[in-house]
Amino acid sequence: MEQNNKNEKDTQLVYGKNPVAELLKSGTGVDTVYLSDSLPPQVAAYYTALAKEAGAVAKQVRSVKLKAMCGTESHQGVAAYASSIAYVGLNDLLKQAEEKQEPPFLVLADGVEDPHNLGAIIRTALLCGAHGIVIPKRGGAPITPTVMKASAGAAARLPVARVANIGESIRQLKKQNVFVYCADMDGAPLHKNNLTGPIALVMGSEGSGVSPLVKKLCDGSVSLSMAGEGTGVDSFNVSVAAGIILYEIMHQRTKEC
Amino acid sequence: MEQNNKNEKDTQLVYGKNPVAELLKSGTGVDTVYLSDSLPPQVAAYYTALAKEAGAVAKQVRSVKLKAMCGTESHQGVAAYASSIAYVGLNDLLKQAEEKQEPPFLVLADGVEDPHNLGAIIRTALLCGAHGIVIPKRGGAPITPTVMKASAGAAARLPVARVANIGESIRQLKKQNVFVYCADMDGAPLHKNNLTGPIALVMGSEGSGVSPLVKKLCDGSVSLSMAGEGTGVDSFNVSVAAGIILYEIMHQRTKEC
Repeated sequence: MEQNNKNEKDTQLVYGKNPVAELLKSGTGVDTVYLSDSLPPQVAAYYTALAKEAGAVAKQVRSVKLKAMCGTESHQGVAAYASSIAYVGLNDLLKQAEEKQEPPFLVLADGVEDPHNLGAIIRTALLCGAHGIVIPKRGGAPITPTVMKASAGAAARLPVARVANIGESIRQLKKQNVFVYCADMDGAPLHKNNLTGPIALVMGSEGSGVSPLVKKLCDGSVSLSMAGEGTGVDSFNVSVAAGIILYEIMHQRTKEC
Repeated sequence: MEQNNKNEKDTQLVYGKNPVAELLKSGTGVDTVYLSDSLPPQVAAYYTALAKEAGAVAKQVRSVKLKAMCGTESHQGVAAYASSIAYVGLNDLLKQAEEKQEPPFLVLADGVEDPHNLGAIIRTALLCGAHGIVIPKRGGAPITPTVMKASAGAAARLPVARVANIGESIRQLKKQNVFVYCADMDGAPLHKNNLTGPIALVMGSEGSGVSPLVKKLCDGSVSLSMAGEGTGVDSFNVSVAAGIILYEIMHQRTKEC
């Protein structure tokens, strides 16, 4: 794979048709795919479709700009920045907790699509003492440079596991005696829950929340109250909701804040 | 002023050199100013500077696009969408509380610059039962279409006061027996505060928090604890921090969530 370390932190420029196609199929975080305006339309369409599938944006640029970005003319009209985040496994997150001699505290982002929201959730998780975050390989934002920026760098510090199946991760966590909660409108009001001990919190997507299948797998669910009912606004922003619940978990775990 | 009601909710297209200049100077919320690529550079630079001062973005577009947007050729190369939010006065916010027979509960955003953050704060404030939000005329985002979208429409429902001087607003609130808190690292830990009764919460800017002058005027300050200290990330996202504190205020006021 042709690669070129540009002096951008946490990202790596990849160019050439095959390298970029491989990258997009690999599930590595990609933010933007740059396509030369000299590409034949059907080639551009192919990469645009691949980018879309990978949750990245395809952007048309002039051939000269691409040359300047890559520092070479051998870019074949295609380039992308890959995230250099090293994803870890679910067990690595649990090991983090073990090393710190703390009961596990994990966050599962099940389909959070907006990179600003995912970044803010990761930032909050780190600050609240979580040991790691789990994101799905499909159906949610990967760790892109935008996520990294929105996380204020937390995404490079908090271990991230990228899993094929969030449901399977929940099953594994339950086997290891981690109590898995999800945030859901029909759950028990936040302050009525005992959130101490080994815990994982599942946050759903912006549009539709936690999926029914995932909800079924969880041990419990937490809901946030709303004073302003009948206002036409019926839910908190997902990163704000995560913040409220994660802070309460930290509060109950430490009794200090 | 030449205006054209486009069928966009909460925004209004304004075009022509003088109308747009007036609009930008008026302090009304503007998101984007559209400049024709046929404008002389010094004219474009003038509007770009005006836009910047008003917290808006200037975008160069083709003359034909501008014509299509405005539905006329008499746009003189300049157009902008104005927010149609009707700002109210500080006393109107207090009246809202009086009408509901509740102790006042206000949020002051002192220089929150990112429209996504401001929108999320307004959304949370509405959901937590606040009676209104106060934003400054200068040094923070106005209610732009982006703010409106990020607020999930809450910005059209929660009364917004846009004031010349946040410090003066704090003085007025204190005179009316509202206890004014700010969010600040050096404050008392969240759960140690009695947050019942007439209350206003001041949130500072993303970069530097609440200004020292404003902090001095406040009756008290609230801090959020961080479990993950020494991680290189030293603060919560401002909309997440507001969420945590506003939810706790609602909790203490209602004892139900």
